[in-house]
Amino acid sequence: MFGTRLKNVREKLEKEKLDAVLISSVPNITYLTGYSNFFKEERDGFVLITKKGNYILTHSIYSKSLENKIPGFGVIEISRRDPPEKVIKNILIKANSLGIEEHNLTAYEYKKLLEVFKILKNFDLKIKRSIKDSGEIKLITKACQIGDEAFKKVLKKIKLGITEKQLVWELENLIKEQGFETSFRTIVAFGANAAYPHHQISDKRLTINDKLILMDFGVNYQNYCSDMTRTIFFGKPDDKQKKMYETVLVAQKKAVEYINFCIKAGRDIKVSAVDKAARKHIISKGFPTIPHSLGHGIGLEVHEHPHLSPKSKEILQEGMVFSIEPGIYIPDFGGVRIEDLYVLEVGRIRKLTTSPSSLREKS
Amino acid sequence: MFGTRLKNVREKLEKEKLDAVLISSVPNITYLTGYSNFFKEERDGFVLITKKGNYILTHSIYSKSLENKIPGFGVIEISRRDPPEKVIKNILIKANSLGIEEHNLTAYEYKKLLEVFKILKNFDLKIKRSIKDSGEIKLITKACQIGDEAFKKVLKKIKLGITEKQLVWELENLIKEQGFETSFRTIVAFGANAAYPHHQISDKRLTINDKLILMDFGVNYQNYCSDMTRTIFFGKPDDKQKKMYETVLVAQKKAVEYINFCIKAGRDIKVSAVDKAARKHIISKGFPTIPHSLGHGIGLEVHEHPHLSPKSKEILQEGMVFSIEPGIYIPDFGGVRIEDLYVLEVGRIRKLTTSPSSLREKS
Repeated sequence: MFGTRLKNVREKLEKEKLDAVLISSVPNITYLTGYSNFFKEERDGFVLITKKGNYILTHSIYSKSLENKIPGFGVIEISRRDPPEKVIKNILIKANSLGIEEHNLTAYEYKKLLEVFKILKNFDLKIKRSIKDSGEIKLITKACQIGDEAFKKVLKKIKLGITEKQLVWELENLIKEQGFETSFRTIVAFGANAAYPHHQISDKRLTINDKLILMDFGVNYQNYCSDMTRTIFFGKPDDKQKKMYETVLVAQKKAVEYINFCIKAGRDIKVSAVDKAARKHIISKGFPTIPHSLGHGIGLEVHEHPHLSPKSKEILQEGMVFSIEPGIYIPDFGGVRIEDLYVLEVGRIRKLTTSPSSLREKS
Repeated sequence: MFGTRLKNVREKLEKEKLDAVLISSVPNITYLTGYSNFFKEERDGFVLITKKGNYILTHSIYSKSLENKIPGFGVIEISRRDPPEKVIKNILIKANSLGIEEHNLTAYEYKKLLEVFKILKNFDLKIKRSIKDSGEIKLITKACQIGDEAFKKVLKKIKLGITEKQLVWELENLIKEQGFETSFRTIVAFGANAAYPHHQISDKRLTINDKLILMDFGVNYQNYCSDMTRTIFFGKPDDKQKKMYETVLVAQKKAVEYINFCIKAGRDIKVSAVDKAARKHIISKGFPTIPHSLGHGIGLEVHEHPHLSPKSKEILQEGMVFSIEPGIYIPDFGGVRIEDLYVLEVGRIRKLTTSPSSLREKS
């Protein structure tokens, strides 16, 4: 698996006429080495792939534990005295050009590398990473299952007076007590708070008037992420709330139907058209348009290529795993979002999250 | 508080002859606005401080919830069509120079901004942020207290056969069930695993032969972090383990004594000398030198300015909060680290973490 990935990187080096590539983002380091222990907010490690060699550049606190642990990779220490640009230039004395991740490399690192390389060119693994192999799909599927299970159990924890933060804790606990991790900061929004797609969880208590409970959460299973959203009702929804819910649910179905239609017709599945199929339905019912993309790829990161947005030129490919998550948000009133993960396989689209999404009242 | 911080930023703009500064890192956005809801791994929001105005630049999914929420800040939407560099240039039509955070801004963003500004200059808040006001010290103190409490309770959870991951879960749970967050990924290492300062937690079970249990963890309380490490013994330590422990403990004391000595003598407290006081002691007892810095500043981030390292030229200042965390690591044998947080006040150094650090045997 890692062998194939490294081979792909070298083919891309050849194609882009680059001497080597420096990988600085933790997800891409994990993708190429399997090692996921560097902290994302520090600059603890880099991977350098040259035409002939593979190296991990890291600080002394990591280097000992990494030696001989990553097959095919040499470990080289970096430090204040031997910063990455110096170490890299020592390995690539005669090289002029280096691939970089320009959306991850910092401006400081970029300027330092420019002192030793004539050409720095963006090097993207996002297209390759967007196509998942069967092993990756299994891991995402497992992450979805753990999430589904936790969701089923958390429904029993919802009660009058619980706060958003407490419900987040209960939900995350159901994931963590099984020994798993969340894949991002869980969102729980009650009532009017659900009008904000990225609501900051608060100490707000659940009251009888809130009605809407939106939960957006995910699981990280062996570095692979799930992501799902459910909106449920605490007590009986009024007509407007019911209409919002049904509209969002049908919008999601419209997107899936459009994908199925393309598969059967043997047509390219343009993500912009998938987005439009759902968005159009929501607008047709008199609701405001979705203030975000319809969905996103997912894998080692929660948000990956491709983005299912109105302006994207991307085409869905077999092996892609992505969310479809239409939503309606009405200020001072509330919001509904329904999000599931899907994989595009040969001749079909398959849903990976399995929690029921029909309107659910919890009393 | 935020008023003073913004005033400091404007004074720095004047001094550095800059027209404005773009703040892109989430901790600095929090520092200047109090808003902490942007995801660190996305590029969801930026803060722009010009000579006269304060702006938050953010995507549509945030903008609604931010309007009129951050006193003194205008909210401006960014999007694919209106990327940050375009929005910023619209605000600063006649400006030539912009401060940037070159350790946070990406290479891509840097290149885009270079298309519209002649001068991009690094703009650092780390010195200002390293001096904590009394409110910040209170929050860090509270984070330390929550951590101390959790540590006391987790000792009861340690038993034969528990895995490192389970113990992490128990420890984090003790923090989260009170409604608080961890400030970083908890490290628990048993036996020989403790030889790696940044051990990746595993399913290794605690056996009677492991003896050493190293726990490194922290609490996030209202955006402020704590950080502490304790190494305890499961059963009776042997002579070498005892010597390691006592040496690390004395090394920490030597560092504190050196700071007290400087305070009394009215001398500058050079962080390199503080590091040396601890390091020298460890080497004098025949152990390998500490493979990391002696400590680090802490606040909105776990690792902040200043770093207490042998080569730093920094001087400790009143209001600085920092860790002192000597360690001894012996491959295939184990490791001991003891870490506490301290604040430098007028005429004294005060310890903020209060968990006992004398050698503790747990049976």
